[in-house]
Amino acid sequence: MPADHTHASSGCFDTAAQDAVYRAIFTRRDVRSHFLPDPLDDEVLARLLMAAHHAPSVGFMQPWNFIVIRDLQRRQKVRDLFLAARQQELPHIAEERQALYRKLKLEGICESPLNLVVTCDRSRSQNSPLGRWHNPEMDLYSTVCAVQNFWLAARAEGVGVGWVSIIDREALKQVLAIPEHVVPVAYLCVGRVSEFALRPDLERHGWGNRLPLAELVMSEIFGGDGESGLKETVTGLCAGRTAA
Amino acid sequence: MPADHTHASSGCFDTAAQDAVYRAIFTRRDVRSHFLPDPLDDEVLARLLMAAHHAPSVGFMQPWNFIVIRDLQRRQKVRDLFLAARQQELPHIAEERQALYRKLKLEGICESPLNLVVTCDRSRSQNSPLGRWHNPEMDLYSTVCAVQNFWLAARAEGVGVGWVSIIDREALKQVLAIPEHVVPVAYLCVGRVSEFALRPDLERHGWGNRLPLAELVMSEIFGGDGESGLKETVTGLCAGRTAA
Repeated sequence: MPADHTHASSGCFDTAAQDAVYRAIFTRRDVRSHFLPDPLDDEVLARLLMAAHHAPSVGFMQPWNFIVIRDLQRRQKVRDLFLAARQQELPHIAEERQALYRKLKLEGICESPLNLVVTCDRSRSQNSPLGRWHNPEMDLYSTVCAVQNFWLAARAEGVGVGWVSIIDREALKQVLAIPEHVVPVAYLCVGRVSEFALRPDLERHGWGNRLPLAELVMSEIFGGDGESGLKETVTGLCAGRTAA
Repeated sequence: MPADHTHASSGCFDTAAQDAVYRAIFTRRDVRSHFLPDPLDDEVLARLLMAAHHAPSVGFMQPWNFIVIRDLQRRQKVRDLFLAARQQELPHIAEERQALYRKLKLEGICESPLNLVVTCDRSRSQNSPLGRWHNPEMDLYSTVCAVQNFWLAARAEGVGVGWVSIIDREALKQVLAIPEHVVPVAYLCVGRVSEFALRPDLERHGWGNRLPLAELVMSEIFGGDGESGLKETVTGLCAGRTAA
């Protein structure tokens, strides 16, 4: 477990520590193919859950729960939901990309040693929806922040995580007895891996390319020009990463 | 900028690097009160944007844009939207908590040197909504992952970030000329800070307490008992952090 941070309040990290944070961010992958069957220690999983639990949440609502799924029969049922959903999604993919879509490996539900569902209990604001009156979806967003914390901590621990999004949520709720007011935000496959791929799977297989970041930066309003200095700096950084 | 990670594919981080990742996660704060007026270097902002841009995204869609807002008049307009929204939200807060709600500082829109809006362009799937046929909201979730990457990288750089969620999104879209098919997912206040608070503001001010993590862990199905070993380990970890 990391050292005590209860009293850590000050500023900047040193270069090595900054580098570690960026390394987790840049080398994190959506893992589908490289899971090892090795079980995950409770100590490691507990740390990852702790990381998730320290995500920001609207109104300090902490709307999340964590369902740990190990039973292989249950996972097989979930995988059947994935297979059905993939069949349903296929016709909505542009025709010229369907052959590639069929070939992509998009989940590791049964190969990974455990699955984790991160849910959002929408009723947890105690009748005081601070930050949610205008934007009730903020609790779902908080839950996603918890997922991303889990994912980055997992990367640092050498644990792979894959998010299965091709699934019928209502069917999943039935399989997992999830009540009406709770949303299964993320279905995650979790486990030790043989490697972390150098690039995202969908990039390696030609599904898409990384967009040029500078073109995504706008100034003052949507589509606003400006920030030329920032954009040049961004372009330089991106070139450095690509050339490396 | 961190060292090259293009070829970094292997496993676990060493203890110091893991510790840095956990430190970013545990000491990240939603900052509202401690902004310094110092401008943020383009180099730093570019690195934070790069971190955001390396978030996972459904179908490698990268649906985000980043609007950098520096103009104080524009920010004042946005702050007026916040003030109006807070007034509208107040009556929906439980009566006994309204006095506390009024006292909370919930934004740093004008004190921070810049604001950043992270948007989601919902049309960016090129007619191939991989992972979005059943769950179209996945692009919004990807955008939230980008926000959380930005937030954690910012913590490592000693930069504070606050997410303003009390705002009327349609009114905000008008002020920022955001088109119909684009959602402003997060309105962030960004800048150097005098300190990072030891605990979340809402916890310090008695709005809520951190929930006991072990009680949020379930086994196999929603509400499922089990995972007693994991729960004990979680409880031990939490006790360690509280006592420290």
